[in-house]
Amino acid sequence: MNHESFKICGDRLLRRIEELGAVGATARGGVSRIAGTDEDRAGRDLLVEWMKAEQLDVKIDYVGNIYGIRAGRDNSLAPIMVGSHIDTVVNGGKLDGTLGVLAGLELVTRLGEVGLQTVRPIVISAFTNEEGVRFQPDMMGSLVAAQGLTVEEALATEDRAGISLGDELKRIGYGGTIEPGSLKPRAYVELHIEQGPILQAENVSIGVVESVQGILWLDVKISGQANHAGTTPMHLRKDAGYCAARISSFVHDLGVHDDQQVATVGVIELSPNVVNVVPGFAHMTIDLRNPNKVLLENAENAVREFVDRLREEQGVEVKITTLVRFDPVIFDEAILKIIEKVTAEKGLSYRRMTSGAGHDAQMIARQCPSAMIFVPSIGGISHNPDEWTEPCDVIAGANVLALTVIKLAMS
Amino acid sequence: MNHESFKICGDRLLRRIEELGAVGATARGGVSRIAGTDEDRAGRDLLVEWMKAEQLDVKIDYVGNIYGIRAGRDNSLAPIMVGSHIDTVVNGGKLDGTLGVLAGLELVTRLGEVGLQTVRPIVISAFTNEEGVRFQPDMMGSLVAAQGLTVEEALATEDRAGISLGDELKRIGYGGTIEPGSLKPRAYVELHIEQGPILQAENVSIGVVESVQGILWLDVKISGQANHAGTTPMHLRKDAGYCAARISSFVHDLGVHDDQQVATVGVIELSPNVVNVVPGFAHMTIDLRNPNKVLLENAENAVREFVDRLREEQGVEVKITTLVRFDPVIFDEAILKIIEKVTAEKGLSYRRMTSGAGHDAQMIARQCPSAMIFVPSIGGISHNPDEWTEPCDVIAGANVLALTVIKLAMS
Repeated sequence: MNHESFKICGDRLLRRIEELGAVGATARGGVSRIAGTDEDRAGRDLLVEWMKAEQLDVKIDYVGNIYGIRAGRDNSLAPIMVGSHIDTVVNGGKLDGTLGVLAGLELVTRLGEVGLQTVRPIVISAFTNEEGVRFQPDMMGSLVAAQGLTVEEALATEDRAGISLGDELKRIGYGGTIEPGSLKPRAYVELHIEQGPILQAENVSIGVVESVQGILWLDVKISGQANHAGTTPMHLRKDAGYCAARISSFVHDLGVHDDQQVATVGVIELSPNVVNVVPGFAHMTIDLRNPNKVLLENAENAVREFVDRLREEQGVEVKITTLVRFDPVIFDEAILKIIEKVTAEKGLSYRRMTSGAGHDAQMIARQCPSAMIFVPSIGGISHNPDEWTEPCDVIAGANVLALTVIKLAMS
Repeated sequence: MNHESFKICGDRLLRRIEELGAVGATARGGVSRIAGTDEDRAGRDLLVEWMKAEQLDVKIDYVGNIYGIRAGRDNSLAPIMVGSHIDTVVNGGKLDGTLGVLAGLELVTRLGEVGLQTVRPIVISAFTNEEGVRFQPDMMGSLVAAQGLTVEEALATEDRAGISLGDELKRIGYGGTIEPGSLKPRAYVELHIEQGPILQAENVSIGVVESVQGILWLDVKISGQANHAGTTPMHLRKDAGYCAARISSFVHDLGVHDDQQVATVGVIELSPNVVNVVPGFAHMTIDLRNPNKVLLENAENAVREFVDRLREEQGVEVKITTLVRFDPVIFDEAILKIIEKVTAEKGLSYRRMTSGAGHDAQMIARQCPSAMIFVPSIGGISHNPDEWTEPCDVIAGANVLALTVIKLAMS
């Protein structure tokens, strides 16, 4: 057959998305399959059952990453890996992660039906605990596969109740027997929903994801002095809440003044948090993201300098802790070009873009050339039961993924 | 005897403050005697016992206000009332309210000892639920006495558990038998700690309180849109947290730009309040106070106009609710002149000032000429176990109160 005419079966892909979405289903179409729970086990069991039905060689590694391997003509060659994750946030949607795994499964299912054997093996991977809801850090399974975290560290992480991920994986039957990262791919491609509003707003079908933003999370604690709101003259105050407000405005405006920068203050908590007391303490977080490492560092420095000036001006104490720092990830230009080519050949609209969210692909990119494909999220909504993508876009994305992987696996 | 040489017994006053402070005592010298609780009952019982020991005629009104009446030479004349409250906030101090009541009690105790009978009767009053911790509004007992709230409304107010103040007063034995406001005073004087830092900062002994600031409390609810902090471009956001921060800064600066204005944002609560989600909802409060009614209205208008502009600029919805609105209260100039005169005769330093906090005196001022006397609060601290005033200042304030009341009661 002609590879260009290869088409996945959209109906089957959509049906499997619904079937897996029914595992851990919540009200209004939501899904809760937190990593390490009984729902996670049920989702994994269904995925493994499907993989085995397609004659894939299923392997589980020590941190529970699932790999379904379809043999190639030359199994001494490094495989092409397609993957994502099937764990969800609390009451998330049916597509986040799942789409990438099931589109991979659909690809190998269809390859079987049409009797096409690729030169290289193809591996469908579902990485453990991408969401990081119960066990931190997030993107854990792919981080371990890429040697960014040891197996021991990952298995020892505990939830708030003191239960370890290792014990939970054993309990649900996904302790695994192979070394993470031992399947060294030639390339990795991940299809994912955008989880943002850009593709829909611009009416574009395919996002060719050339980078993942660098992320910096800062935790800021401001100690001022709680005082009576009526009796304390303004010049004798040390208002921690006012300082938090000033920092919040400053952070936001950094994003407004630089096209590539996004900047968010998601948490503000005041103490004592009552109407008639000047806040003596404030806790806030700052989320800065930029695809350009230097610009991200500039933004961080600007925040720190602003806080220093404010500290002096307002007489408060400020403690800044770095919670998360990930450098930007640049994806492989050769794979990006293949994605653009097959998208154009399909007659689909596309644009280059940056991923604002973190994904397993940014971890696997440490291991091999990697790239991502985005499809539009309606209203930009994700991590929410209302998360959805038009079926035609889902199918288009899965076809672009399939053609890209076939091209990579044929040489 | 010569009235000018009259002196209260400072040791007894300080001892009674300690004894009443032991009722409902918490760690580190704090006190919790929330209105309507068993601790409130125990404090009331002790006060009534002391009043009866001084031969006062004790009366309780329908909302639990306690009155201890010392007869005058002509009991057909309207009495001079001295009072405040003995309920506290959670883990408050020993002086807030208590000082005014016990200084009044000390005055009549000492009058008995020296055998001085005033022309008019003197009434020591302890008003129910000044703090408003469990039952709202605050200053409730004096508000009812001044006919600002009906007895039925006051007794029907419920705490968060649905228990009414009326039931609690009955339970603790302070349901009372006389009509609030039926003791119509000729004048009312209240001694109180400043609860602010001004007197101490200026090294002044006595505050001659000529007014109580007008108070406006606004509740602001901002509805934007929760979005992924990484994937949502700045121009597509409706960040409710950013709007709250902008409003908070604006409100604070109103206070900085006008000497008489104080302005506080005490509450900010974001939803979902997580590091990587643009806040979709924000709740905040605004506390504006000014002794000048027109300036307070100007400040309110400025806030509302700013919020209107912000709403349009940021595409959010904002709902503003007025929680509390009290006009400024101007105290009686004749009483203020008497306070200044006796303070000067005692050789004490004094200054005119505005009360930043609310007090029972502002309610009773609707009923009769009223005024207040402040003594310094160390560090301006109040509503806190660390609330304190130097004993010499406590005694000086009680003497100024005593001489003022004697002057008023002699004519």
